[in-house]
Amino acid sequence: MKVKDLIYQINSKSSFLCIGLDTDISKIPKFLLDEQDPIFSFNKSIIDITNKYCVAYKLNTAFYESLGTKGWISMGKTIDYINDNFPELFTIADAKRGDIGNTSKMYAQTFFAKMNFDSVTINPYMGSDSVKPFLDFENKISVLLALTSNIGAKDIQLKKINNEYVFIEMIKSSMIWGNEDNMMYVVGATKPQFIKKIRELIPNHFLLMPGVGAQGGDLNEICKYALNDSIGILVNSSRSIIYATNDEKFANSAESEAVKLQKQMKTIMLEEK
Amino acid sequence: MKVKDLIYQINSKSSFLCIGLDTDISKIPKFLLDEQDPIFSFNKSIIDITNKYCVAYKLNTAFYESLGTKGWISMGKTIDYINDNFPELFTIADAKRGDIGNTSKMYAQTFFAKMNFDSVTINPYMGSDSVKPFLDFENKISVLLALTSNIGAKDIQLKKINNEYVFIEMIKSSMIWGNEDNMMYVVGATKPQFIKKIRELIPNHFLLMPGVGAQGGDLNEICKYALNDSIGILVNSSRSIIYATNDEKFANSAESEAVKLQKQMKTIMLEEK
Repeated sequence: MKVKDLIYQINSKSSFLCIGLDTDISKIPKFLLDEQDPIFSFNKSIIDITNKYCVAYKLNTAFYESLGTKGWISMGKTIDYINDNFPELFTIADAKRGDIGNTSKMYAQTFFAKMNFDSVTINPYMGSDSVKPFLDFENKISVLLALTSNIGAKDIQLKKINNEYVFIEMIKSSMIWGNEDNMMYVVGATKPQFIKKIRELIPNHFLLMPGVGAQGGDLNEICKYALNDSIGILVNSSRSIIYATNDEKFANSAESEAVKLQKQMKTIMLEEK
Repeated sequence: MKVKDLIYQINSKSSFLCIGLDTDISKIPKFLLDEQDPIFSFNKSIIDITNKYCVAYKLNTAFYESLGTKGWISMGKTIDYINDNFPELFTIADAKRGDIGNTSKMYAQTFFAKMNFDSVTINPYMGSDSVKPFLDFENKISVLLALTSNIGAKDIQLKKINNEYVFIEMIKSSMIWGNEDNMMYVVGATKPQFIKKIRELIPNHFLLMPGVGAQGGDLNEICKYALNDSIGILVNSSRSIIYATNDEKFANSAESEAVKLQKQMKTIMLEEK
């Protein structure tokens, strides 16, 4: 997928919502455990009912890997289901991979070629040659961790190099590796105070912003600083949507939460115009 | 496994060699492709013939993931085979994972609890709470990326914070997260000039040193600075051992390469005494 297709979708749906499929076998409704593939059944129900309100799904690979081959199969079925039925939706493998060149190439092949995700999250600590193999794929997007939503961001990302934060130095370095068509950045929604600075540096790149919902980030607050002329952000919510309730009506509950966020986004988009 | 068990093994084998099972279906001998599980067959042959000369095996998860569920099965069979037949060997999942707390917990469960690896490599860019869930496992070891062997290390790791390299700041931060019994560090064998400084900071932690062989690191050079009273390093070689030749005698060729490195290590260990 190209970034312009994502922008088209954002405008037509009045939404920049990304739903995180952090599907945890211990948290899904008990009655689904009788299904042949409970994880896929759960995801399918969530996707079927929420796809009108979001523009992207993010699959957190850790949750699938934790179930071994079974989880790997569920992840494959989920991405195939999205690609087959809702090809307009942007898909993210939230894998946070990154290694020396020949190894990163393997990861890129896995998520881009074999599984056909539109994008992968990448940990940039190992630098340019760990990211490049992902950027070599056409019409695919590398999403680099810049400033993450967790407390530990202070340990490295928020240390200062020559009066500049490490994550800002990372963004500066990475700007010559790719461009706004093949790179996005993860910027935690829990740290709105840094967004203005980020936007000065990269006004046009898309930002993937996790941390709204369970982690406490505020949608209006981040939009104040993060939006650009093409909207330019994907706001991810995982737990507060997919685990809204844990009963037979879990999908409807997820829908309500997705609709709530989409309506807020629509209001924000109207005010922007 | 405990670090003291690893030290015992190093002394009894006169080796601190770690063999990297970066097993690539396109690089293994063609005749193995007729086997039911070519990747496992290759690994088993390498393990059976080299286990006397090494103290650890490192499985690079990217190579297994790239084959989807099949690769995941091969990885599971390989770690089970090592644990069942050579339980004294130290095993490393070279996965370079790391995410927010609830996600890192999933990765830790996958590699430590489900697959029973002794250790996992971790990318520390996301800080303390991304590493802690790994450290919560008893008798397991978290191997943090400090200074990697690739060119891209200059982009972030070798930038300076207050006259100090980012990777040094990372090591300093991480020293309060864990201790020498549950943490090791990845330090590339291609960058010997930094090892002295690292040893001043962490004299007792084990260092996992990739980059000898195909990447050009020199064994004698790194040993000059990296060894401590317990030896304190694992030197990894992958491609130059497992792909020494690509014919029917591939295992014997791998053995020769492993023996060559083990002999060099024995000489170095004798000189140290």
